Amino acid sequence: MYKDTNRRSVVKGLSWRVVATTTTTAIVYVFFDRLDLAIAAGMIETVLKVGLYWGHERIWHKIRWGREQIEPFNLWFTGLPLSGKTTIADLVYEKLRSLQVPIERIDSSDVRKLIPDIGYTREDRNRHMKRIGYLIQRLQNNSVSTVASFVSPYRESRKAIRQMVKNNIVVYVKADLETCKKRDYKGVYEKAERGELKNFTGISDVYEEPQHADIVIDTGKLSPEEAADIIVHYVRRHYVK
Amino acid sequence: MYKDTNRRSVVKGLSWRVVATTTTTAIVYVFFDRLDLAIAAGMIETVLKVGLYWGHERIWHKIRWGREQIEPFNLWFTGLPLSGKTTIADLVYEKLRSLQVPIERIDSSDVRKLIPDIGYTREDRNRHMKRIGYLIQRLQNNSVSTVASFVSPYRESRKAIRQMVKNNIVVYVKADLETCKKRDYKGVYEKAERGELKNFTGISDVYEEPQHADIVIDTGKLSPEEAADIIVHYVRRHYVK
Repeated sequence: MYKDTNRRSVVKGLSWRVVATTTTTAIVYVFFDRLDLAIAAGMIETVLKVGLYWGHERIWHKIRWGREQIEPFNLWFTGLPLSGKTTIADLVYEKLRSLQVPIERIDSSDVRKLIPDIGYTREDRNRHMKRIGYLIQRLQNNSVSTVASFVSPYRESRKAIRQMVKNNIVVYVKADLETCKKRDYKGVYEKAERGELKNFTGISDVYEEPQHADIVIDTGKLSPEEAADIIVHYVRRHYVK
Repeated sequence: MYKDTNRRSVVKGLSWRVVATTTTTAIVYVFFDRLDLAIAAGMIETVLKVGLYWGHERIWHKIRWGREQIEPFNLWFTGLPLSGKTTIADLVYEKLRSLQVPIERIDSSDVRKLIPDIGYTREDRNRHMKRIGYLIQRLQNNSVSTVASFVSPYRESRKAIRQMVKNNIVVYVKADLETCKKRDYKGVYEKAERGELKNFTGISDVYEEPQHADIVIDTGKLSPEEAADIIVHYVRRHYVK
């Protein structure tokens, strides 16, 4: 959230002055055919109006009217562990930030690091979704959009999020299990296969594919950069005017 | 978070035109002593410049420079159950909203209704504080200030919040136990005294008074309205310029 500084109002005033005084001088010259007087009038106008413009800006800065609340959205990345959700979501976040969209990144691993007692059972995961949904709501109340990446393997938890937030965009990051295992730099699939990680999505727990994803990213065909561009394009078309 | 609508830019242009054309006409009149021509020049200027001003506004609306991120704060209300935290915090929230401060209200009971599995032991409460701290951080990242009311009976949990968020303002809502019991419209103190509520602050659990509260509200001496005014005054002096 930003506010206009005094300096901004001054510089806006100067840039406007260049446009405006040129016009005024031209008008006076056309009317009176006296270039010297036209320029003199323009100069006096410049001095007077830079100050007036500044005052005008500061008054309007306090006026709420005609400002429109920015409509927030929630990009919800779902997919198997190591399908590429975080990589793509990070890229999307950076691109949207550079478009000056007020936006916040929420990644499963950050949240779980902070609150390590969440658990991975169906019940745990669903309860966790409500917390995340609450967080997104609080941000959306203040026009902040979100880029959230969570395995979110169950239909009911994705539904809970959809019911809690507005403008929910489900991005299904699709990668087959074999590909994810190949990317297993964290060694989590290996651990899960040895039975050391319980309720591990894809191995010892189900991943229920989304039936109505707004965007499906096939990571076998698209690079993360290409995927991010498709998603940003979708968001711009629907939510960033 | 707001954006300037097209209409706003048009109306700003018109309001500026009244100021500017009056000035131009006066200047031309002083220079040439011909009121008819001065008015004609003013009329042409009006038509041309309303459009130019609009364009100028739309361009500047896209320019980030000179906009300053709004500095967020966190008002943290602590005190015994039924001391009056929620009542005062609600009033403060409304007052700050009307000052156009981007702000969000977080109340213990809302959070607990949504996530009923939090618990009331010392460990539960401290863990809960971290979640709330995380939520406040996410809002602060986006310039959204917060009005949070939680019993938060332990020094260590209030400290955890202070370390996680910026511009933390501790408001200690002070009421003696007898007064809180008298206000017991929920019947919670009664239940706690009968042993039906465990770890109930004030009865079966400790409340560690804050040593360094930024604001202390003595509810025996101040009405909620007076308390809210004191707090809003403090915030305006320190954080809302």
